[in-house]
Amino acid sequence: MITLYTWTTPNGRKVPIMLEETGLAYEVRPVNLGNNEQFSSDFLAISPNNKIPAIVDDEAEGSPLTLFESGAILTYLAEKTGRFLAPPGPARYKALEWTYWQVGGQGPMLGQLGFFAKRSDEKAPLAIKRFTDEADRLLTVMERRLAEVPYLAGDTYTIADIAAYPWTVAATTFLKDVLTDSLATKPSLHRWLKEVGERPAVQRGMAVPKL
Amino acid sequence: MITLYTWTTPNGRKVPIMLEETGLAYEVRPVNLGNNEQFSSDFLAISPNNKIPAIVDDEAEGSPLTLFESGAILTYLAEKTGRFLAPPGPARYKALEWTYWQVGGQGPMLGQLGFFAKRSDEKAPLAIKRFTDEADRLLTVMERRLAEVPYLAGDTYTIADIAAYPWTVAATTFLKDVLTDSLATKPSLHRWLKEVGERPAVQRGMAVPKL
Repeated sequence: MITLYTWTTPNGRKVPIMLEETGLAYEVRPVNLGNNEQFSSDFLAISPNNKIPAIVDDEAEGSPLTLFESGAILTYLAEKTGRFLAPPGPARYKALEWTYWQVGGQGPMLGQLGFFAKRSDEKAPLAIKRFTDEADRLLTVMERRLAEVPYLAGDTYTIADIAAYPWTVAATTFLKDVLTDSLATKPSLHRWLKEVGERPAVQRGMAVPKL
Repeated sequence: MITLYTWTTPNGRKVPIMLEETGLAYEVRPVNLGNNEQFSSDFLAISPNNKIPAIVDDEAEGSPLTLFESGAILTYLAEKTGRFLAPPGPARYKALEWTYWQVGGQGPMLGQLGFFAKRSDEKAPLAIKRFTDEADRLLTVMERRLAEVPYLAGDTYTIADIAAYPWTVAATTFLKDVLTDSLATKPSLHRWLKEVGERPAVQRGMAVPKL
């Protein structure tokens, strides 16, 4: 059984989507970031970076396997099940390329935009401008890609789409007022959002954790 | 032959280190970021995110394979050569966990600190404080890990160390004055820096591109 430590954030939703897509059995342990539960010593032992999501798989080789970082967990679950990430070859590396693009770019930059433009009481116009511009640049990269191919990695739905979906939803909801102009010129991104969002496993994953 | 598009930045150094470690033949195409060469249409066709590093491998399956994102390139080269990333099992996922930690956390947060504390003429104290604190937090996570095990993934030098090395060098050089207090309390990090930095392939990789 896999134990999933997560919360109601974009990074926190990537892994339940993957677990729902693959049909693996799991139980959820909510880690309430509002109460700083990610800094408890119990959680630190599982996630030395003090961040969700993290998993413990007590049926893995050398189990229990504890794992943090959403991109690593998605790759692990893909290799465990043989789903949503091809074996070595071009399709695999296109999926990893866009997964790393999401983890190293789209996620952190939208996250910083959320802090500076929405969550911080103190305002730093330089930072708001920097991260608004960078979010627009990244969404434009995504739009250009999705105008050419149906999914980020190409013809097939992969862990790259699973990684990018919750953050792109955040761009169109939590960050909507900051990104209005950018979102108005992204028809392919909206087409992809709708298609991925209609997957039943994505809908179930986006509802985790239930509070 | 592999063609490497890169520049003299921490992300740009990860891939030449890996190429030197694995002994693969490659040729270097410097992409001068000072001249905005990353925005040329030729480069965009290889790296749709307009960032270095990127590679083209004309001997890959389905070649030529073009690939951007340092983490994806490191994984590709590891799987191509069978070096520095174990096959499925706990050692593999620990290496991927710390590689994703570097790509999603250490890299972007040190990068933002560099912009706000060093490169920007306009100063945003809120942003400088945020990224100084986050850099200190991340270096503390790294210190705690390297006090327990010799390398980020555990007993063995992997792509996680290759990803983290050039950014940790930047923390101790370009960002040294901002991070003086943090760096003063990181003996295990300095032990690891010295050991990794003494590897001949790392020294050769850190000197790419030659200008």
